[in-house]
Amino acid sequence: MKNAERKKSMVPKGVATFLPEGAARRRTIEKTLLTLFGQWGYQEVITPLFEYLDVLSMGVGEELLNRAFKFVDRSSGRMMVLRPDVTSQIARMAATLLSQNPLPLRLCYSANVLRHEEEHAGRDREIFQMGVECIGIEGVEADAEIVTIAIEALNRLGLKEFKIAIGHMGFFRGLLEGLEGDPAITTAVLHAVARKEQAELERLLLRAKVPPKTRSVLLELPNLFGGEEVLREANRLTRQATCQNALRQIKIIFDTIRGAGYGSALLVDLGEVRRFDYYTGMVFEIFVDGMGYELGGGGRYDQLVERFGHAVASTGFALHIERLQTFLDKNGFREDYYAADLLLAYPVSGRADALRIAQGLRREGYRVISHCGLKSIEEQILKAQQMRAKHLAVYGGQSSRNLLWIDLKSRAKSRLNSEELANALAKSR
Amino acid sequence: MKNAERKKSMVPKGVATFLPEGAARRRTIEKTLLTLFGQWGYQEVITPLFEYLDVLSMGVGEELLNRAFKFVDRSSGRMMVLRPDVTSQIARMAATLLSQNPLPLRLCYSANVLRHEEEHAGRDREIFQMGVECIGIEGVEADAEIVTIAIEALNRLGLKEFKIAIGHMGFFRGLLEGLEGDPAITTAVLHAVARKEQAELERLLLRAKVPPKTRSVLLELPNLFGGEEVLREANRLTRQATCQNALRQIKIIFDTIRGAGYGSALLVDLGEVRRFDYYTGMVFEIFVDGMGYELGGGGRYDQLVERFGHAVASTGFALHIERLQTFLDKNGFREDYYAADLLLAYPVSGRADALRIAQGLRREGYRVISHCGLKSIEEQILKAQQMRAKHLAVYGGQSSRNLLWIDLKSRAKSRLNSEELANALAKSR
Repeated sequence: MKNAERKKSMVPKGVATFLPEGAARRRTIEKTLLTLFGQWGYQEVITPLFEYLDVLSMGVGEELLNRAFKFVDRSSGRMMVLRPDVTSQIARMAATLLSQNPLPLRLCYSANVLRHEEEHAGRDREIFQMGVECIGIEGVEADAEIVTIAIEALNRLGLKEFKIAIGHMGFFRGLLEGLEGDPAITTAVLHAVARKEQAELERLLLRAKVPPKTRSVLLELPNLFGGEEVLREANRLTRQATCQNALRQIKIIFDTIRGAGYGSALLVDLGEVRRFDYYTGMVFEIFVDGMGYELGGGGRYDQLVERFGHAVASTGFALHIERLQTFLDKNGFREDYYAADLLLAYPVSGRADALRIAQGLRREGYRVISHCGLKSIEEQILKAQQMRAKHLAVYGGQSSRNLLWIDLKSRAKSRLNSEELANALAKSR
Repeated sequence: MKNAERKKSMVPKGVATFLPEGAARRRTIEKTLLTLFGQWGYQEVITPLFEYLDVLSMGVGEELLNRAFKFVDRSSGRMMVLRPDVTSQIARMAATLLSQNPLPLRLCYSANVLRHEEEHAGRDREIFQMGVECIGIEGVEADAEIVTIAIEALNRLGLKEFKIAIGHMGFFRGLLEGLEGDPAITTAVLHAVARKEQAELERLLLRAKVPPKTRSVLLELPNLFGGEEVLREANRLTRQATCQNALRQIKIIFDTIRGAGYGSALLVDLGEVRRFDYYTGMVFEIFVDGMGYELGGGGRYDQLVERFGHAVASTGFALHIERLQTFLDKNGFREDYYAADLLLAYPVSGRADALRIAQGLRREGYRVISHCGLKSIEEQILKAQQMRAKHLAVYGGQSSRNLLWIDLKSRAKSRLNSEELANALAKSR
């Protein structure tokens, strides 16, 4: 293999690599969101990286399973699958390990999911997601709760201009209630609506002999998008009970979220039908201008936990952490990044003393790199900058003020003792 | 499949499942360690979950690769491997993406690694590790630094009685320097020493025609274990320069760590030869009484980064997070676990008001579960206990003091307004 070629293909496309600054940003995002989820009473759980294919396929739909990574387990001979989705795993957990726990369960996670993409499709194969699942509340107050959490999550991360498009699987399914003969047709129609493929949709509806009135509402779906007036408009289009109930639920969710002061981000989108086959009620997606993909989304999945043996209504959402991070980075939400608060340089002879000073500062919470054996002041300044340290001090030996503090901007020097050094760091905290 | 059988085999053995309390404990450990690593200037990086087998096998030895999970990449046709080790990945990163960065690189990570074990061996297949890598310092001060960090890590987690056994690959390799004909023999001898298989070791040494004097030192290795006097003893056993240099390095490392006030945990163990084939210098293992496996370990690997194309000396260690957590749990380091600080129950009619109060408390940092539609006080108390909330308040409507605070232990009741509720929570923080 040629050298250049080897270099190019050293790492598979689409897997996660975060260098220090990106990793630090990701940690900040994770911490912000886990704190928020915790404040709403959502407890973190950790799910397995891989599972038996036959078990997970009870929860995950075909489309997603086709994109999952699979391998044969050497010891059991069974097929394994790297998790392509966490919600199904948590549903399994709720139906098995946690089935004796009192409801509701409020759970959250931060995990990588793995999905096969063509190597050059430019989309990620290792995707970091964080999400919440509220298991065991049938009422729409749980739907309003998770949408509110999603909005607060974006607020806390500093996003201002985002939209939450809320739809309802019940509106869509209500329209198709007459033709429950062939579930394959319903699925095909669902996918055509999800992908907004109008021509394909029309073809399918004609072939399935959908009555003209229902057909026209289904074809109208992409236009049932906008403010709350869309609910009234949709209400005029169909008297079907399931549809009307869906509209009523969306209305309550809107009112509740508006009550929490977050109405401005909300939109109705009755064409919003999420592709994962487990959604049954309210669904939503989060999007921002200038980003081709949604930043996250979720909805109600009242039959998913039941597939693992425990009938319980649930709702939840997930955020796509890398897309969020990319968007935040592009839109100037960056802070100055420092790997350390201080580089403390020392000669070999001063090792014990210098290390003791560094230790004292670390105990006070400072990030200190100790560095042995530097020569000139210029070299020390360069080293501090290269190491991305915010400040520089050089241990010098003799006097009681044995630390030389060098301002990295002005290059002004001053002699300090270790207490004064701690004070200097505290000032710039 | 029978129902019982299905239940039993729903999740593969040895993969990670953490329910809320365990996940919270793991987060606390992770946060403690990442904070510590950061205070030493180590920056977190995130490495891919899987890599090309041919690339990773440049760094990972055969024994470990045999236990790695592999699958064929659909798009490239190349073999992929789920990371069985993070150090090799960071070495690759240092040699490629970070090769232009000034040295030293101080990097750390928190990641799951995947290793194949027989399904019923009772050992984990998905293993959480956290570690640090110091890349680009040849001197032993870096070795002393990482051992010191390991000791501080255990201290911060509340461990008191642990031992750090320090050895040196140079001592072992120095003894074998005469017989560099067959590297397979060296490897076999290394494994026999690592596993403390004396009979096998003797057989190998005889077959390889190792001179009697060297043979007796090699067979003596398991006994070269104890306090610093072992260094003097070993010094008498061989005049080989590589061996003597190794002993000198251990001495400096001991002195430096003792200077930092951590001498009491240290032991010399010249029979400590870590099985990963990439170690070249100082090596160490951490162990505690009552645990059959080490809690972590590491050492110097001066040639690993070079295998990926960039010659640079390095040293590092990893901690086995689940073993640590198990040990801490068994030894009473647990704290009371609460999923939330407050359960705030409310009737449907009070939804908007109650949600506003809950929001205010969350903004002050409290974890608040809001719960709609409860009936009797008894039911509410039970719900709070079931949800593992620390406190309970019920939203009541009419007066200005519209919150009923119910002490979960004494069941004493008092009426509060929202400000007084915040104060009551603050008092028990």
